[in-house]
Amino acid sequence: MNVLSMFCFPDWNVNAFFLAETATAEPADSALVLASVLLSLTVIYLASKLGGEICARLNLPPVLGELVGGVAIGVSALKLLVFPEGGGGVDASLIFHFLQSTSSLTPEEAPAVFSASSEVISVLSELGVIILLFEIGLESDLKELIRVGPQAAVVAVVGVVAPFVAGTLGLLYLFHLPVIPAVFAGAALTATSIGITAKVLAEIDRLSSKEGQIIIGAAVLDDILGIIVLAVVASLVKTGEVQISKVIYLIISSGTFVIGAIVLGRFLSPFYVRLVDGMKTRGQLLLVSLIFAFILSYIAQVIQLEAILGSFAAGLVLAETEKRSELVEQVVPIADIFVPIFFVCVGAKTDLGVLNPAIPANREGLVVAAFLIVVAIVGKVITGLTVFGSENLNRLAIGVGMIPRGEVGLVFAGVGSASGALSPSTDAAIIMMVILTTFIAPPLLRVVFKEPDGAIEEKTPT
Amino acid sequence: MNVLSMFCFPDWNVNAFFLAETATAEPADSALVLASVLLSLTVIYLASKLGGEICARLNLPPVLGELVGGVAIGVSALKLLVFPEGGGGVDASLIFHFLQSTSSLTPEEAPAVFSASSEVISVLSELGVIILLFEIGLESDLKELIRVGPQAAVVAVVGVVAPFVAGTLGLLYLFHLPVIPAVFAGAALTATSIGITAKVLAEIDRLSSKEGQIIIGAAVLDDILGIIVLAVVASLVKTGEVQISKVIYLIISSGTFVIGAIVLGRFLSPFYVRLVDGMKTRGQLLLVSLIFAFILSYIAQVIQLEAILGSFAAGLVLAETEKRSELVEQVVPIADIFVPIFFVCVGAKTDLGVLNPAIPANREGLVVAAFLIVVAIVGKVITGLTVFGSENLNRLAIGVGMIPRGEVGLVFAGVGSASGALSPSTDAAIIMMVILTTFIAPPLLRVVFKEPDGAIEEKTPT
Repeated sequence: MNVLSMFCFPDWNVNAFFLAETATAEPADSALVLASVLLSLTVIYLASKLGGEICARLNLPPVLGELVGGVAIGVSALKLLVFPEGGGGVDASLIFHFLQSTSSLTPEEAPAVFSASSEVISVLSELGVIILLFEIGLESDLKELIRVGPQAAVVAVVGVVAPFVAGTLGLLYLFHLPVIPAVFAGAALTATSIGITAKVLAEIDRLSSKEGQIIIGAAVLDDILGIIVLAVVASLVKTGEVQISKVIYLIISSGTFVIGAIVLGRFLSPFYVRLVDGMKTRGQLLLVSLIFAFILSYIAQVIQLEAILGSFAAGLVLAETEKRSELVEQVVPIADIFVPIFFVCVGAKTDLGVLNPAIPANREGLVVAAFLIVVAIVGKVITGLTVFGSENLNRLAIGVGMIPRGEVGLVFAGVGSASGALSPSTDAAIIMMVILTTFIAPPLLRVVFKEPDGAIEEKTPT
Repeated sequence: MNVLSMFCFPDWNVNAFFLAETATAEPADSALVLASVLLSLTVIYLASKLGGEICARLNLPPVLGELVGGVAIGVSALKLLVFPEGGGGVDASLIFHFLQSTSSLTPEEAPAVFSASSEVISVLSELGVIILLFEIGLESDLKELIRVGPQAAVVAVVGVVAPFVAGTLGLLYLFHLPVIPAVFAGAALTATSIGITAKVLAEIDRLSSKEGQIIIGAAVLDDILGIIVLAVVASLVKTGEVQISKVIYLIISSGTFVIGAIVLGRFLSPFYVRLVDGMKTRGQLLLVSLIFAFILSYIAQVIQLEAILGSFAAGLVLAETEKRSELVEQVVPIADIFVPIFFVCVGAKTDLGVLNPAIPANREGLVVAAFLIVVAIVGKVITGLTVFGSENLNRLAIGVGMIPRGEVGLVFAGVGSASGALSPSTDAAIIMMVILTTFIAPPLLRVVFKEPDGAIEEKTPT
């Protein structure tokens, strides 16, 4: 409904009134929001492709390039793409300076347009990780995942317990931190970023290997464990005791959700195939599948789990149907345009300023950070050694696959600093640990998988 | 970066702080905004597929079903999907009642989440029409468009002048309206909604026919003429005189833009092909093409034209390259998920309440509306008769293709009512005219093209 409304004379307010017979003023001019979103997407895509191509040529994973491209245009460097929650205002955004000099945007309107456009880009990036996990689910093998389930569970549990215990005890006895911040920082070490690892595995074509499936299974379990750990730690901070009822609720609801989604999905999938085959309009397969994925994502989210668990479960279930290959073909272009938004935004929101040793608070943090980084890497790498059963597994690769903390670790840092439990330096140390583990894992994963030459070329089949 | 942040305990504010080491409070909880967007998209896709499938079975164009599906879930009926600028608040939205009863959303947070989520859906729908026009451009034939250019220009000019003159004079002398509202309502008759017609033409596989290309060419010119007419009429309302300088600026900038984009595009296209061929990462063709389309859309918008002109021009230019068929294949799924958002939103924002004859203001409007509808249809249908040159053209089809006013006509109604130039009844009459011409054109277009049996099946090639 934009059409003419996009066009904006400086002296009259056309855009606030499109389609409105009752002329309610909008908070932000929709034409300018669209212009700003178009500009942001252009910058995001340029950064993702430039970074990705450079990394591909250096034999590094393209996703690392997308993260670095995001850092380059984000709050740490060029400040083209900044977000209000990263502490950056509209004045910090170069895109908005450009927008103001090329369009009719006035300094008065700029904050509302900036906040609306940041909201849109944030949701697009969240849709990006939802679609990424849907694609990962589609390319995973449910039977294989169930087969590796016990091994993945051990990896996940060890990968939560080992860094948590080592981190908390180390901070208590080596650095003499109080109990609460030590527990919080220890908890931040437990998370695993499924997005980063899964993308790298897909890039080097190891997603469906046994190692790949153990990593994915363990990372999914880790996501659920992470939610439970966060609940425990946060209620500890808030009330001084652990709310057992909430922990039990989370365990039961997550278990019920994952098993329920798979059982229900298997039951419904013949209807799904018949429905799609019976439809006559364009895009029927894609839209029916996305409806299913979005419904599961919504349910996962409102029962206090995560939307990405829902889309992953949806992908797993639909992968069992005969429509799988046709669906994958159509999901690939969707993922191509949504997923880079996620990775570039993760990079853009990462503030490398916390690594600057010239700032005293950072210096204190740097020592703690060095300790956390060692625990974070060792605590996950050893998980690979706990895998039992198979002899021919690349155990090191499994451990390395669990290293990246990504956005999940940052949530811990955010919650901790908001609750007042963490000092700025401990908070900065957690952020440094997250940045380093996130950036180090993709190239390490490549090395430990000793990929064959040429696997770096990952063009879509034409 | 959403992951854990999506998960929300009622009693502590996790979500506002993800990624934030400086904990700036956000205006709307991002986890709830995402939940609401997921729910809205699910409802939109359900409505579009349900409406589309029913219409396909009744041998009506699926796009009509998407519009009607939108009306069904929109402000006129179920009120599942309502928008702030349509006069609907958060209390009117059933999605938000559902969200409040299933999630941790509180009534206090609801307005901020509602406005953020409406903004996101609006931008997605605007991206939908941008991608639709990009796809239309890709499927158009630039050489054919240039060849039919003179004929399309005559159709466009007659289609603007005839309804404008007949409408204005009729309102002045038959209904004794004052000059300004008469001119405004006359101007609202000039627009053509390129989206609706182009979608129907694509559905019945007539987009690349000579008639189809004349309609598309004329509709694009009409969009430009519509911008100029709106500028003239609005400055007439505001200052009592026509700002010649603005009119000259618009004519020159639109001409320069369209010709410049095509010339520059042809010049750059060998580089584009070489660039895409040289890239090694996934999605390279799609992203490079979208970057081009978004840049042109941005330029078109900031020089006071429309974003869709930019994406159409981008599609036209890229259609000339050897990558066309590969690109079309990848754009189809993107269009499948974005375009329905546009049509459903147009339907959802349409308030059929103005057609209720029980309300006195509507009764007065209904008489004026009947007149406007006749002028709107006749004024465009006769344009087909002015096509010169070819003997075997379906002239009636060309005229019918120009009938739908769609969202462009609603912009006139919105601007008119906002400026105070239109009385509520005249405003309602314009809205009725827009609704009727928009809804009548798709089935009429099918009838006049006398499509072969079976053409209604328009599944994507598998």
